[in-house]
Amino acid sequence: MTPRHAFNAADRAPTGIVLLNLGGPETLDDVEPFLLRLFADREIIQLPFQGTLGPFIARRRSPKVRKLYEAIGGGSPIKWWTEVQAQGMVRRLDRLSPETAPHKYYIAFRYTSPSSDDALRAMQRDGVRRAVAFTQYPQFSCATTGSSLNELWRAAARTGLTDAFEWSVIDRWPTHPGFIDAMTETVRQGLSEFEPADRDDALLLFSAHSLPLRIVNRGDPYPQEIGASVHEVMKRLGVGNQYLLAYQSEVGPVSWLGPSTERVLHGLASKKRRNVLVVPIAFTSDHIETLSELDREYGDLARSLGITNFRRAPAMNGSALLQDAMATIVREHLHSGEACSPQYGLRCAGCVNPQCRHVANPVKAYARMPVTVTKETRQFIASGMARSTG
Amino acid sequence: MTPRHAFNAADRAPTGIVLLNLGGPETLDDVEPFLLRLFADREIIQLPFQGTLGPFIARRRSPKVRKLYEAIGGGSPIKWWTEVQAQGMVRRLDRLSPETAPHKYYIAFRYTSPSSDDALRAMQRDGVRRAVAFTQYPQFSCATTGSSLNELWRAAARTGLTDAFEWSVIDRWPTHPGFIDAMTETVRQGLSEFEPADRDDALLLFSAHSLPLRIVNRGDPYPQEIGASVHEVMKRLGVGNQYLLAYQSEVGPVSWLGPSTERVLHGLASKKRRNVLVVPIAFTSDHIETLSELDREYGDLARSLGITNFRRAPAMNGSALLQDAMATIVREHLHSGEACSPQYGLRCAGCVNPQCRHVANPVKAYARMPVTVTKETRQFIASGMARSTG
Repeated sequence: MTPRHAFNAADRAPTGIVLLNLGGPETLDDVEPFLLRLFADREIIQLPFQGTLGPFIARRRSPKVRKLYEAIGGGSPIKWWTEVQAQGMVRRLDRLSPETAPHKYYIAFRYTSPSSDDALRAMQRDGVRRAVAFTQYPQFSCATTGSSLNELWRAAARTGLTDAFEWSVIDRWPTHPGFIDAMTETVRQGLSEFEPADRDDALLLFSAHSLPLRIVNRGDPYPQEIGASVHEVMKRLGVGNQYLLAYQSEVGPVSWLGPSTERVLHGLASKKRRNVLVVPIAFTSDHIETLSELDREYGDLARSLGITNFRRAPAMNGSALLQDAMATIVREHLHSGEACSPQYGLRCAGCVNPQCRHVANPVKAYARMPVTVTKETRQFIASGMARSTG
Repeated sequence: MTPRHAFNAADRAPTGIVLLNLGGPETLDDVEPFLLRLFADREIIQLPFQGTLGPFIARRRSPKVRKLYEAIGGGSPIKWWTEVQAQGMVRRLDRLSPETAPHKYYIAFRYTSPSSDDALRAMQRDGVRRAVAFTQYPQFSCATTGSSLNELWRAAARTGLTDAFEWSVIDRWPTHPGFIDAMTETVRQGLSEFEPADRDDALLLFSAHSLPLRIVNRGDPYPQEIGASVHEVMKRLGVGNQYLLAYQSEVGPVSWLGPSTERVLHGLASKKRRNVLVVPIAFTSDHIETLSELDREYGDLARSLGITNFRRAPAMNGSALLQDAMATIVREHLHSGEACSPQYGLRCAGCVNPQCRHVANPVKAYARMPVTVTKETRQFIASGMARSTG
């Protein structure tokens, strides 16, 4: 016999869960378009004469980046892993939260398909009304989750779907116990690959994507949240291994948040450390920064410097614990009735982007949210539409 | 009837607990000598022609700093509060840990008395054998705890007391539950001073002393540990208030870790925030950075910018919860048998100070500690002695 909630669920409009992430080029031919879109995004990169200089830099970097993707199998696995995670999440959610079932997932990447526009149009086709924007970056930064949300709201305006859905936002989960469990499991797996005699000596080098100091100095919460994630993982892990936190992937002439993972490896080598486990703390899936930068670039560097046992904790990728965490996070969120976390309502002290910290058509008026679209915001959204569609 | 352990305790050598902190000028006449010592310390400040330029800067800054101390009552209350905290700690410890009683405390400040030399000589007079160096900085930085410990070991060498005591070290306690309880109580007190109607709107602005980026980039653990403290306090507090972390007290021409508390206040004012509670997260007692910089300088600034309800959470000062925490931390440490935390054994990746992360005559060989005094360390200590005594 079909349980009553399952029968009801089939009649109901699905709850749409939009997974926000950067995305990556799926094939080698996607590399150049991906870079062109990235270097055109003024929310992330500000260049003088961006309309000319952006494409110039993107095209010049393209062959090099293409080679990096070639070396890791011809493209980014992020879409693959996001699908795996999303399917596991939705299966669990239908069971955990029958009152909001059925749940359907939609992927919204930034510079590659499926885009926010694709996600919104698919939601409309599926008859979604209640929608949750669920960032796949555990720690919040304006450069990641903030800009993904801004793009989602711009896409809603572009597609004429601003009022089509009632939105709420899961904007961060840096210390959610389920996430910490899943991350800690990857560290245990990484440690288990050391010889027992070396294991206790292994230094845990947590590595997160760096952020330009310009963004840090505006009051971006990312460094504090990364620090909190590291703390919770170490507490959950319960081992006496030494650890430190560093930041990777800095590029270009601006100043970035340190210490740099690369320079830390030089320093550890000079101090004769032989056993290092690098732990990507800010990503849920493998992509170019783990498979190429950490495993190849820094791995080769570390070994050449004498760090003979340099290993990386696996990304969570297909981890069942991550899918448990994602489902639990969404269920708790849906049952809280909140439109977003209190922190999302707090614009960075130095923020100059008038679109920031907006929720389109929020499920519930949230006292501290700028839920009224100001003239300033409307102009900003319109200018974004002009740029994106023009 | 006297309990047996109390009877025994009276016959036993006391356990010496050395409280390490920066200290501050107790009277206005102590200001210049304090600054002269600070600007002579190459572990903290590196100047070209330090022997000439250091005294020059110290003497030039002295009248201005003297005025700041004059305005807060004629001196730093840090010695007063340290005595209060230490007495409460020792009273509790004798009860909590009779097997290591009696406990005696000694204060070791950096640039004012009592110095490390004073503490060591007093310990010798009291017949101490087992000694614990207990940092009063909850979060570890080479610029604070690291340099205090280095100075303690140099002082031991200077006074011929290197082998007089069996040492262990409490080198950090950023997330100890007792500390988090005590800090959280100060935030609650601060919040209670807002009108009920304003309380939920109050932004919690955690403020920690900043650090030069040069030190951050070497791999100093301070920013990560500050992030973890903030996380634990917010979790313990259990309120929905928005919060952010900023860094104060940057000085001179070098680059410091941001966002700067001062610039954050400008940003919050421009976003029409009216209710701000600043929370000093890295200090246990009031001193110039709370009483002068936060309360006067930033308080005046905030109000002039329109942050009409700018308040500061009280420092822990005479908090009974802090004394509970200190006693618990020492008891747990004594019973763990450890010479120091695993993290203390980890020199910063970019460290160039050969004296760092040394424990003189440690109570127990600790596998990862550089317990053997190398030729390099001996030379460094000797050169420090020459500088300090010459």
